[in-house]
Amino acid sequence: MIAKTPEPPYYAVIFTSLRTDENDQEYGEMAQKMLELAIQQPGYLGFESAKSAIGISVSYWKDLDSIRNSKRHSEHLLAQKLGKSTWYEAYKVRIALVERDYQF
Amino acid sequence: MIAKTPEPPYYAVIFTSLRTDENDQEYGEMAQKMLELAIQQPGYLGFESAKSAIGISVSYWKDLDSIRNSKRHSEHLLAQKLGKSTWYEAYKVRIALVERDYQF
Repeated sequence: MIAKTPEPPYYAVIFTSLRTDENDQEYGEMAQKMLELAIQQPGYLGFESAKSAIGISVSYWKDLDSIRNSKRHSEHLLAQKLGKSTWYEAYKVRIALVERDYQF
Repeated sequence: MIAKTPEPPYYAVIFTSLRTDENDQEYGEMAQKMLELAIQQPGYLGFESAKSAIGISVSYWKDLDSIRNSKRHSEHLLAQKLGKSTWYEAYKVRIALVERDYQF
């Protein structure tokens, strides 16, 4: 669903990825576990994800410290390490300060 | 594909939407036309899109002026107006300054 984020400013981590065809089930389990972990982190504000030819996941955070802490989490790091070789052909992460938002 | 954006800083417009089931073909044509228009605008840097339960489109821009100019474009405004009632149950737009990025 569309994430119910608070009034800006807050941070977005835009994760765009091109998946390999391998290990779909393990990837799904990992992604689910990663999300469950993120939700528990201080400063977590929301998550959105969609997948077509590429996957786009956006997580929202209170500030840069929240993002750093989440990243530091050991299981997160583990998943990143495995992910590079096993799950992704390529990915790009963008850390962005949300300055303004509007909705319908 | 994953957008080949320059070194930060630059801007991202994160558009998250929940579509109605109606007018799929017209919507596709509109979306394609909107993208063709965006690509021609000054300051356009790239575009990424994926769709599952929700759609996420991220366009990248040199600065806030580029985003404003693009938004001001009459056909863009027209599409937004029609889109509210016809194409979307809900959407959220977030304007964000990309401060840092990394990739694999």
